[in-house]
Parts: sequence; C-alpha cells; structure tokens
Amino acid sequence: MSKVVLHVTMSLDGFMAGPDISVEHPMGRGGLRLHEWIFASDSDVDTVVSREVSASTGAVVLGRRTFDVGVEVWQDTPFPVPCFVLTHAPRSRLVMKSGSFTFLTGDVRGALRQAEAAAGGKDVTLMGADIAQQALRAELLDEINLQIAPVLMGEGRRLFDHLGTEHIELERTRVLTSPHVTHLRFRVRYARGTPSGETSLQGLGS
Amino acid sequence: MSKVVLHVTMSLDGFMAGPDISVEHPMGRGGLRLHEWIFASDSDVDTVVSREVSASTGAVVLGRRTFDVGVEVWQDTPFPVPCFVLTHAPRSRLVMKSGSFTFLTGDVRGALRQAEAAAGGKDVTLMGADIAQQALRAELLDEINLQIAPVLMGEGRRLFDHLGTEHIELERTRVLTSPHVTHLRFRVRYARGTPSGETSLQGLGS
Repeated sequence: MSKVVLHVTMSLDGFMAGPDISVEHPMGRGGLRLHEWIFASDSDVDTVVSREVSASTGAVVLGRRTFDVGVEVWQDTPFPVPCFVLTHAPRSRLVMKSGSFTFLTGDVRGALRQAEAAAGGKDVTLMGADIAQQALRAELLDEINLQIAPVLMGEGRRLFDHLGTEHIELERTRVLTSPHVTHLRFRVRYARGTPSGETSLQGLGS
Repeated sequence: MSKVVLHVTMSLDGFMAGPDISVEHPMGRGGLRLHEWIFASDSDVDTVVSREVSASTGAVVLGRRTFDVGVEVWQDTPFPVPCFVLTHAPRSRLVMKSGSFTFLTGDVRGALRQAEAAAGGKDVTLMGADIAQQALRAELLDEINLQIAPVLMGEGRRLFDHLGTEHIELERTRVLTSPHVTHLRFRVRYARGTPSGETSLQGLGS
C-alpha cells in the first residue's frame, strides 16, 4: 500500500524556505541554505537518504504555487513520476521529459487518491508547506522525513503552521546524522478525537 | 570560563510551552507534554542529560514572567544556585531554600555579566523563551541543548521567534536519542556582520 510521505528540510527555527518565494527565488530569499546538504555530496548518509527519496517516490502531489515557482528550475517534473497539482484554476495536462503534471481541483483527499492510484505501490510524495499542512489537517499524512539544518533563519515560510490546536503525536522511527543535517523520520499518530495532552501523559505512565 | 547555555524542550513545530501560560499552567495549556521525558525516568540517556544540566549550572538568568509562573512550582530556586531575574519592576532579593533570586533591571548583557561572576566557573543557564531570544539577538548565547519532543502542538509559545532576519549558523556538537525525545546540542556561530545565505554556501564549497 502506498504511504503519503513528506520529505523536507527545515531550519531549527521551523522554516522550509526563506521569505518572498518567487520564480526568481523558488526557495525564498536565503532559502537555498536549507538545501546545501543535497548539493554538498560529501556525505554517504546524505546521498543514501536522497536516493531513498527518489527510489520510493511513485507519484507526487504539490500545490499550484510550488508548481509555478518550481517548474522553471526543474525543467521537468521534480521526480520522474506522475505529478498532481492541486489548484483552483485548472489547466490541461502537461507532459514533460520524464513525467507529467495533471492539474486537479477539489481537496487534498481527492488528489492523494488519484496519486495513489498512479503510484504503482510506491509512496506518494508531498511537496510544499501548504499541501503538507492540508494533508496533516485531513489526517492523511503518514510519514515525515525531515532534515533539520543547523541554522536559525529568522524569517521565511513556516513548515508546521495552521495545524489547529490538537496535539498530533509522532513516533520517531529513524535518526541519522551527517555533517550537514540531522535526518529525523517520524510516523504520524493521529489522536482520532482524544483530547490533547492528557492521554499521552497517561499512555506514558502505564 | 562560563558558557551561556539554553537547555530547553521544543515540540517539532517549535513550541517550548503551550498557550495561555499562567501560574495555574506554568507550561501553558497542554505544555506539560514537553516535559514528559524528564518525568518518565525510564531512559538512561534522559537521566544523564538531566543530571548534566544540574551539574553544569552555576547560575541562572530568567525573565520576570518565568519567575512569576515558576516560583510557585519550584517552591525554591529552579537550581540550587544564584538566580538572576531580569525585570522592569525591581524588588528586593529573595533568599530561598537552596539559592536566591536577585532582581535586576537593565539589559540581558548586564544580567549575564552578574550571573557569570556568581557562577563559580560553571555555566550560566537561561530560562524562558524571551531571555533566550534576547541573548541570541545580543550574540551572547553560546550553546543550545535542545530536546525535540515528537509532537506537533499547533499552538503555544514559540522558542525561536523575533530573532531578526540574519541567519544564525549553528554547529551541531551532539545527538543523543531516547524513546521520548531527540537530544541535539549546538554551538552558536554568530556571523558577526557577514550577509546571510551567501557566505555559508561559499564556506561549504571550499
């Protein structure tokens, strides 16, 4: 069965891009700092994690904004798989070199369903903070593969924002370190209606 | 020489306490979730880290708000050392069971200087997000001993906030894992005037 996975790098103060994201600066001003680990290429751990992401991705769901600022950089799909762009303004399918962009209206649930059908049993990878937040709120995100970059950026696009006020518990499933980042992998454990705070304290004491 | 160290637990989405911090809820609503690791007492790693904090602390600097909501809980000083409370409304020194609270007006630099003089060569420990942010902005925080709790809290008191727009680079000096949290320790590397983004990219390539 496909999992829905968010692969993302975050500064220690919670930003996944700098401010003023644009076609000129798809990672926002100063945001390329976050992706240094991908391009440094001197750490086996980083290389293995990067390859895992590519190998496990069967389809991608991204937001329209991520598409708009990203497509110029990629000059292709971000991964060589079917990609689904959630948008309010639909347009016709774009066939690129190694994959395609299909534009969908509606909610994240519908987009994930279509992506899963196209993923051939591999994972559905999410791209963009907005899509990640929508999937978390809809309790449809299964795993978070997070790189923590050792920097305080001070401003930018927050990764975990607008999540509501219920605690969402995570189970850490992996910790890997490289000279550039700390790789943390989590499984998301939705409370499914239990009140925040109290239950987790009880669970821990038993 | 004393180091200035922040020991703090943060949710993965960046909160060091829940919302509505008060005497009744010193960690904010739901914020006790963050300190479960301290009270679980079933992890040697957690125990070692907790003891290190106590053993290395020679003095404490805290904000008035942290004092106001904390003193009822502690019924003493938070550590058995001289504690310095930065406040706009000075009051006379309070001698507690195992230490004392001295109330200081002025800026964080002056408070840290007094704390360092009283720390007997041990570290100065900071308590509270506001004091931590002031020390970071003044480039006076040397190390961050961070516990990342595997939870998205959604709301509360942000740890790293109001830091300005310059990147502050960190050097990760330790990673320890327990079943409850991920312990990350960082040394702060202030740029001292270099522009954000560009320099770090160059440094990495060289």
